[in-house]
Amino acid sequence: MDNFENWESTLLLSIELLATLAFALSGIMEAARKRMDIVGVCVVGFLAAFGGGTLRDILLDQRPFFWVENEIVMWAVLALCILSISFMRQKHFELTEKTIQWPDALGLGLFTASGVAQSLAIGLSPTVAILMGTITGIFGGVLRDIVCNEIPVSFKDHRPYALCSFAGGLVYILMAAAEAEPWFCMTVCAVLTTLFRILAILNNWLLPAWRKD
Amino acid sequence: MDNFENWESTLLLSIELLATLAFALSGIMEAARKRMDIVGVCVVGFLAAFGGGTLRDILLDQRPFFWVENEIVMWAVLALCILSISFMRQKHFELTEKTIQWPDALGLGLFTASGVAQSLAIGLSPTVAILMGTITGIFGGVLRDIVCNEIPVSFKDHRPYALCSFAGGLVYILMAAAEAEPWFCMTVCAVLTTLFRILAILNNWLLPAWRKD
Amino acid sequence: MDNFENWESTLLLSIELLATLAFALSGIMEAARKRMDIVGVCVVGFLAAFGGGTLRDILLDQRPFFWVENEIVMWAVLALCILSISFMRQKHFELTEKTIQWPDALGLGLFTASGVAQSLAIGLSPTVAILMGTITGIFGGVLRDIVCNEIPVSFKDHRPYALCSFAGGLVYILMAAAEAEPWFCMTVCAVLTTLFRILAILNNWLLPAWRKD
Repeated sequence: MDNFENWESTLLLSIELLATLAFALSGIMEAARKRMDIVGVCVVGFLAAFGGGTLRDILLDQRPFFWVENEIVMWAVLALCILSISFMRQKHFELTEKTIQWPDALGLGLFTASGVAQSLAIGLSPTVAILMGTITGIFGGVLRDIVCNEIPVSFKDHRPYALCSFAGGLVYILMAAAEAEPWFCMTVCAVLTTLFRILAILNNWLLPAWRKD
Repeated sequence: MDNFENWESTLLLSIELLATLAFALSGIMEAARKRMDIVGVCVVGFLAAFGGGTLRDILLDQRPFFWVENEIVMWAVLALCILSISFMRQKHFELTEKTIQWPDALGLGLFTASGVAQSLAIGLSPTVAILMGTITGIFGGVLRDIVCNEIPVSFKDHRPYALCSFAGGLVYILMAAAEAEPWFCMTVCAVLTTLFRILAILNNWLLPAWRKD
Repeated sequence: MDNFENWESTLLLSIELLATLAFALSGIMEAARKRMDIVGVCVVGFLAAFGGGTLRDILLDQRPFFWVENEIVMWAVLALCILSISFMRQKHFELTEKTIQWPDALGLGLFTASGVAQSLAIGLSPTVAILMGTITGIFGGVLRDIVCNEIPVSFKDHRPYALCSFAGGLVYILMAAAEAEPWFCMTVCAVLTTLFRILAILNNWLLPAWRKD
């Protein structure tokens, strides 16, 4: 029984770690494209991985930050930064970018679910909780792009990213209103958000653009 | 009597709503100019409308945020974003920009007054209170411009905007030192800041530039 | 005895003031290069001087901010901004930039030491404390560059700046582990960080670049 629970929590931590590393890699590659040095690569990697959750914790006035409580994740991101600088070359970027789309979708799902859950836990309204879920999911990437002096890609590429997170958050709220257990809401929200994002990638869904007239 | 008070608070909420929507519109149009998608338009609209007040609340460690307490304003901004995307075209921008200058001046006045009042209420010094009033008034626009990858327009257009807010805050402090009632200080500060800004626009006042030698 | 203590604390305040003014000057000059107006110059000057410490205080959830407690430093930075706009011309920039390298190194040392000390004082782990020390030291410059619409110079110039701060923080932690007195850890950390930075400037040390293949 104990063994099973250990196995379960190890699995959960592994999934979280995988998703966080995917977020970090997106930062590392953008920093590399901008020809930043090792400091820039590490900072942008950390921002992409931890920026969304940290902003959520600041907005919700929650301390300690989640990365303060799980230092192992910080060490893993730091190791990834140093490994990337040592071994990654520009020719690897295209393949890496295609590969990290999948764990990145997982991260979007997990971060959205955690953001909504934490907001509801401290008594915020459903609307604000959905907003916080989306902020948790997308602001790592937004901060990454701001520091790299770019318009955030999730604001202008016309691909559903924030909207997947928003839709997942909405499902969470509806299930919570139907009095489902929190752990069940979280799982469904994370899985559905990830699924929405994967469908969006596979089907090349596009958001409507502004008309030019 | 009760009817009168209701009428009064409805008027106040309407003014606030008008000002907030003017701030949001400035964000929506800048996002549109940058060809952002619907997510970018909404985020930049929200940042322009709520960024200054949220930053003030973070700096003062105040929770809940004012938009958490007045969800109606959030819904109004969201509706404005969606309406703008559906119906606004580039040919409308010039007229819209000229029109929102006036409610925007109102917003500058209201936000400045609220920032100063809230700082004094938690016991901060007059100097810091003026600073917080100005931050509340201008940082919505500053965050909007940073996300849109521009140098903040209020830092480089040589037109008095932050200075109007600063001057209004100073008047508040002087009146508070003369022991005027808070509601009276707030009203005078909001009206004067708005008036300064309107005079600056009408008279085309310019701040001194750096000499080029 | 009393006289000696007064003399000591006056010296400490003078060093802090000098370092803060050096940070502010770096902001003022970058704002001037971007042709900002007086508002922009003041805001960027303040951000460069107080941004790192303020971000640290937000992350650690500490209030009041250090500049709220020492208003004299705020007034000094404001005076510096106004003096610079009145008397500084572009021909002075090169000399000023060379000159402020030294007090800037001092600021890096002092801010790093204060960041580490404050983090340990509220019970954070050594790893997080080093991180907070580095954030305190470098994020004033990072925020300055973001507002000026540049990639932060400390992320891409391949010169050790954040790394000096990181190394100094590491020394602090090692000494604290050996149970040295806090004031002694702080002094050694500040002096060593400053020294590392000065050596890096004098010897033109460079961080390794990404290989281009």
